[in-house]
Amino acid sequence: MKFSIKRSAFIQGINMVSRAISSKTTIPILTGLKLSASNEGLILTGSNADVSIETVIDRNDADNELIIEEEGSIVLPARFFSGIVKKLPSDKMTLSVANGFQTEITSGTSSFTINGLDAADYPHLPEIENDNEISLSGDVFKEIINQTVIAVSNQESRPILTGVHFVLKDGTLFAVATDSHRLSQRKVALPDNQGEYDVIIPGSSLSELSKMISDDTENVKMKITENQVLFTIGNTYFYSRLLEGTYPDTSRLIPKESETNVQFDAYELLGAIERASLLSHESRNNVVKLTIKANVKQVTISGNSPDVGNVEEEVESKEVAGNDLEISFNPDYMKDALRAFGHSMINVSFTSSLRPFTLVPSEDAENFIELITPVRTF
Amino acid sequence: MKFSIKRSAFIQGINMVSRAISSKTTIPILTGLKLSASNEGLILTGSNADVSIETVIDRNDADNELIIEEEGSIVLPARFFSGIVKKLPSDKMTLSVANGFQTEITSGTSSFTINGLDAADYPHLPEIENDNEISLSGDVFKEIINQTVIAVSNQESRPILTGVHFVLKDGTLFAVATDSHRLSQRKVALPDNQGEYDVIIPGSSLSELSKMISDDTENVKMKITENQVLFTIGNTYFYSRLLEGTYPDTSRLIPKESETNVQFDAYELLGAIERASLLSHESRNNVVKLTIKANVKQVTISGNSPDVGNVEEEVESKEVAGNDLEISFNPDYMKDALRAFGHSMINVSFTSSLRPFTLVPSEDAENFIELITPVRTF
Repeated sequence: MKFSIKRSAFIQGINMVSRAISSKTTIPILTGLKLSASNEGLILTGSNADVSIETVIDRNDADNELIIEEEGSIVLPARFFSGIVKKLPSDKMTLSVANGFQTEITSGTSSFTINGLDAADYPHLPEIENDNEISLSGDVFKEIINQTVIAVSNQESRPILTGVHFVLKDGTLFAVATDSHRLSQRKVALPDNQGEYDVIIPGSSLSELSKMISDDTENVKMKITENQVLFTIGNTYFYSRLLEGTYPDTSRLIPKESETNVQFDAYELLGAIERASLLSHESRNNVVKLTIKANVKQVTISGNSPDVGNVEEEVESKEVAGNDLEISFNPDYMKDALRAFGHSMINVSFTSSLRPFTLVPSEDAENFIELITPVRTF
Repeated sequence: MKFSIKRSAFIQGINMVSRAISSKTTIPILTGLKLSASNEGLILTGSNADVSIETVIDRNDADNELIIEEEGSIVLPARFFSGIVKKLPSDKMTLSVANGFQTEITSGTSSFTINGLDAADYPHLPEIENDNEISLSGDVFKEIINQTVIAVSNQESRPILTGVHFVLKDGTLFAVATDSHRLSQRKVALPDNQGEYDVIIPGSSLSELSKMISDDTENVKMKITENQVLFTIGNTYFYSRLLEGTYPDTSRLIPKESETNVQFDAYELLGAIERASLLSHESRNNVVKLTIKANVKQVTISGNSPDVGNVEEEVESKEVAGNDLEISFNPDYMKDALRAFGHSMINVSFTSSLRPFTLVPSEDAENFIELITPVRTF
């Protein structure tokens, strides 16, 4: 195996697949980065038990300045190899595998020789043969991920809740996540995709995937088999295992009626919650209180810590309707929920101080809902 | 005590004195930030056992929008208070101390009440009555600090070596530091300062001070008493304790003659050392080897790790004179030393593979010298 390449193009590829590589793995060869030089170009692969990423540096794209003199494969220690490539002195570099798995990397007057591993020992990526591909625009899919992963559980006690439940049915994609304290659900119409799916994708995989979707990403393609999902973004392939089991029925958790309704600017409410949480974080029970006086249309956020002090703030609310209410909740859940709305107007609906309340965008209220369970206080 | 102030001006002051405040102190009141509103303006103070910083927000500077309604002092929990001020909703804020030490902070519709401490319990800053003030231009003083603190010891076994030795004599300021493996010495002519000083300032204090010297800092004034030094930068006062004891005589450590001399571009040599250290860091004994073949004017840097591989690189050198040489050293010492030269040309002079070698700038060689002790290898 021997090739020369423009270093910046190579670094971009290395960074892409390194997302999947962990130095804390029980399978030693997975600490490595696999390189394969073939007719097509240079294929880079990184993997851990859950996620595998493959990217192809096209030999026909002149920008890559890729010249393959000899085809072949090698696995190189990822962290170390990536450190070398980033530090090389010249814009161009050459890599060649000589006797055994010894790999020589040259650039300018610098020459590294490092010990590689046999690429034949590297695990094969799953084969996903399924013609039924869902195609989503990059920004919409990134939004779906970011709006749902916030509610994913990080506790392994109920593994199924560490994933996001995706259901494609009747041309609509539902994505929902809950850690049993809060829930986040997004709906998108996909009229061109007529298949049916029901899968649970690990939240951690989706978070990694989301970082790979840039403003330049036109679309993300998604293919599913029994226990794997493959996302394709341009020349990059992202594989994740699926979670096995049945996701709980979340539809009955969302209240159908409400007693108190308030409209907020999500960003302004976020600021007030952040300030109140400065106090609540100093306290043993991390709660913030929201007080609604419907008749005088007044909404107050307050937080307190016996040791440190207290804070009270009146929040501007466009509309206040229904019953008076005092309700306490974990401000960190509220912050995550509000950040998903950006600067838009939201409707918050309460039933009682002990029942979950919901947040929906004032416009397009049908397609996104967040639910938070309050904290009982005395 | 009651005042209102432009929040951004207050934040700037809080950030300045917070450098001296640690949450890990054995003296509880020092986790606090002291505020004093007086005729002059608002004085902020932060301190740990070693360093104290005081800054004055001038009430006559209209930019600060400072209105003092009632004079007085209070000590507030620093990290927490600073978090609040940074998060407040409006550009302006008001702070007032009500009954006891309860402090109310208001901004927009937000109102915090936090528990303060009696400012009378806050330690007094040292009084430094000494008319003999040294004045240095900000950029020169910052350079002196950055060029010498790199060689300061971080081992408490010989406390005196954790400081930089400053000697002012015959209109020249000498600054020298050594951790006994390397040494860094800087000389500056100060014709206007005719006093005599011989003090050892903790390296950690100087590192903090250096961060406070910005491009806008015209000059830094320095006053010394028996066990304290006071630096003045504009409206900010930086106090540090001095180290007690006698600093070792370092002048005899610097070799007077040399057998091999090479001229390098410091930045190019740094790149080669960084690459070689990628390998040496993987090895148990972290050394990089420099090989000089004077007759063919060839200089090679190499590093190797039995487990991972090796690297060799030829470094361009403008001049090579004297004997052939092979010498090994800790690349981290070399990196620190080379970074202090930036992009300039340097002369490196060797005596033998077991004797310390020196680095000086090719221009102005008299005023800055770094010395590194090699590592014996087999």
